[in-house]
Amino acid sequence: MLAEIITIGDEILIGQIVDTNSAFISKELNKAGVQVYQITSIQDERQHILEALSEARKRVQLVLVTGGLGPTKDDITKETFCEFFDDYLVEDASVKQNIIDIFHTHLKRDPLPANLDQALVPSTATILQNKNGTAPGMWMEKDGVVFVSMPGVPYEMKHLLTEQVLPKVLTKFKRPFIYHKTLLTYGQGESIIAQRISHWEEALPPHIKLAFLPSLGRVRLRLSSKGINEGQLHREVDTQMQELLDILEDIAVGFEDEHTIEERIGILLAEKHQTLSLAESCTGGAIAEKITSHPGASVYFRGSIIPYATQLKSEILGVDPKLLEEYNVVSIPVAEAMATHAQKLFTTHYAVATTGIAGPTKGDGEDEVGTVCIAVATPSGIISEKFSFGNNREKVIGKATSKAFEMLLKEILKN
Amino acid sequence: MLAEIITIGDEILIGQIVDTNSAFISKELNKAGVQVYQITSIQDERQHILEALSEARKRVQLVLVTGGLGPTKDDITKETFCEFFDDYLVEDASVKQNIIDIFHTHLKRDPLPANLDQALVPSTATILQNKNGTAPGMWMEKDGVVFVSMPGVPYEMKHLLTEQVLPKVLTKFKRPFIYHKTLLTYGQGESIIAQRISHWEEALPPHIKLAFLPSLGRVRLRLSSKGINEGQLHREVDTQMQELLDILEDIAVGFEDEHTIEERIGILLAEKHQTLSLAESCTGGAIAEKITSHPGASVYFRGSIIPYATQLKSEILGVDPKLLEEYNVVSIPVAEAMATHAQKLFTTHYAVATTGIAGPTKGDGEDEVGTVCIAVATPSGIISEKFSFGNNREKVIGKATSKAFEMLLKEILKN
Repeated sequence: MLAEIITIGDEILIGQIVDTNSAFISKELNKAGVQVYQITSIQDERQHILEALSEARKRVQLVLVTGGLGPTKDDITKETFCEFFDDYLVEDASVKQNIIDIFHTHLKRDPLPANLDQALVPSTATILQNKNGTAPGMWMEKDGVVFVSMPGVPYEMKHLLTEQVLPKVLTKFKRPFIYHKTLLTYGQGESIIAQRISHWEEALPPHIKLAFLPSLGRVRLRLSSKGINEGQLHREVDTQMQELLDILEDIAVGFEDEHTIEERIGILLAEKHQTLSLAESCTGGAIAEKITSHPGASVYFRGSIIPYATQLKSEILGVDPKLLEEYNVVSIPVAEAMATHAQKLFTTHYAVATTGIAGPTKGDGEDEVGTVCIAVATPSGIISEKFSFGNNREKVIGKATSKAFEMLLKEILKN
Repeated sequence: MLAEIITIGDEILIGQIVDTNSAFISKELNKAGVQVYQITSIQDERQHILEALSEARKRVQLVLVTGGLGPTKDDITKETFCEFFDDYLVEDASVKQNIIDIFHTHLKRDPLPANLDQALVPSTATILQNKNGTAPGMWMEKDGVVFVSMPGVPYEMKHLLTEQVLPKVLTKFKRPFIYHKTLLTYGQGESIIAQRISHWEEALPPHIKLAFLPSLGRVRLRLSSKGINEGQLHREVDTQMQELLDILEDIAVGFEDEHTIEERIGILLAEKHQTLSLAESCTGGAIAEKITSHPGASVYFRGSIIPYATQLKSEILGVDPKLLEEYNVVSIPVAEAMATHAQKLFTTHYAVATTGIAGPTKGDGEDEVGTVCIAVATPSGIISEKFSFGNNREKVIGKATSKAFEMLLKEILKN
């Protein structure tokens, strides 16, 4: 059971937007036992859409198409679907009513003619009602292959996919079970890890696949397998993963399939009824943004101070100005003082502080671009470390954020 | 002159990572006059890679491949390239030296055998030395089509692309000029905008293409054209864009090709020697994260307080507790007090405050999920507004962030 995702939109091909829809769709399909064979991004252009549909049909049994369903003239997916399926557009009364309802409820006015044209759908399409927007989803079949068209707006697509498309896919197709389990490690490079686990890797059964996923400051190790017996599949992968975990115990921080590192931190803190605050200088809100993107963050996250200008580290956070003079603004003593003061100000069990030079130019201190000090104040003390994260701003902020979560998680697990 | 991007990696097809490389490559190629015809994401699988290379060759003259070049066993791009080009692997002395240098400089140790295997390259490949990593880029040609292989790690790929691949592309191929200009608008939906500009759109010359790009709280309008006379191309598009700007003056905030809205704010503040601070509650660091992701933010951005827990709005930010009692925590008076206090605490010209219920569950107040109050304190007063941003957490945070930037920019332009 294979699927292909086709994303339509010039904005993807000129690099104006990053295609996040495909990752979401792939993840959801995988959970449902559908393997995504290919993702193809194409232009808002009739001939190109027709070609992509024809080629996808040779490769897979399910084709999910996003984009090109808006009310404006550059949106041509519906017309092109009609050409591909030798069909024509008809007005669907339920879609029309949905459009009118959405306008009356949210915009307090009548829809324009262009909005009502969104009720025109291919006559043979099964309508997937879009409660979050005016463009309906459409399910069509041709020679045993299913084609689904969804709007490209992420929250509309997500809702349609999980509420309407996936239930229909589950009914229509027989699927094996697909199981991935990913170990998160922090602190060692992929080649060292590969060497450490080489004996284990050689003994891995051929139907279980290992992948290395290195990124800023961490390496993820993913085991994947599929089969018809779900229990056996899970047992086999879990057994292998346990062996891997035993080998890499010193650098492993948890499993990604369950939660990201910041979610894991949040769950642990909530369980222990403990709280967290931040004093983010060089990371400038990146740590807080990640924490607060998850529902329920307010249970354990009390807040943050971002003392971006040097003197604010004293004025607002309360760091002794003598420390800033005697040491550097990017120094272990300053990072530790920032964490301790945040912990007190917010009355939290834990506090994380970052101070550093994200670049590209040097800051107020003498340090090289990429120098970052991170401190974690805990209920039982404080730990800190100085790092060099290279000279790329995005990379420095990303690595510092990863490292801060890694240090914090280790302390929470100890306490 | 058409190109195709092929990204190799199971992690993309199972939705474990979002493919950000393709957007970067597309943008850079566009600037160089190369149109990206298609982006194809495929598995780390020999037969699939061979098929994708064969098919791409029929469509385009330049194929850029990322991924599959790591030191571990799941990386098979080089071996598969050899099969496709009927070639074999040889050790490249300069690549080997680069690997040794990187290990000695950054890791203070000798490379492992698996790392030195990264010096094995197809015998006919032109090497593109990777100064940021151990996997080299490779340039190969077959029947007039150029194939380039680059590592998938974003900062390694970015450096290789801009420093080595693009200069060679510019020398090798004749290219037209491609020009995009995108108007950023805030506050009206795409169908209303389409109606307002319909006369202008009908008169648009066929070689200039208009696209609508709606997203959280804003619509971008992109004009695209290509041609061999760069001056004429720019004049034509700029003239049309000026007409469009005249029609949409009330909702336009600037051009995206130049800068994002937060960059525009940064440039204006830096020019005026003015400063900004934040008090982010429901946006939880998302505004600060966007501001500080750009180099030079420290010139105008002094910092932020994220008083995530309600009582911290009083304790740290200094909002009168009576206000919180009398009104709701999500209310105009509280948002205004937050902005005013941030402005004073950080001694800045401007301060932006957000307070709201991001969801999915209700917060400390009585308001519905999605209710957000935003205030902007300026040198001459304060403005504020209450919004309903729906019931999706990501959407609420995203829309609140967009709206805060929009309100701030309007105030900066007035003052």
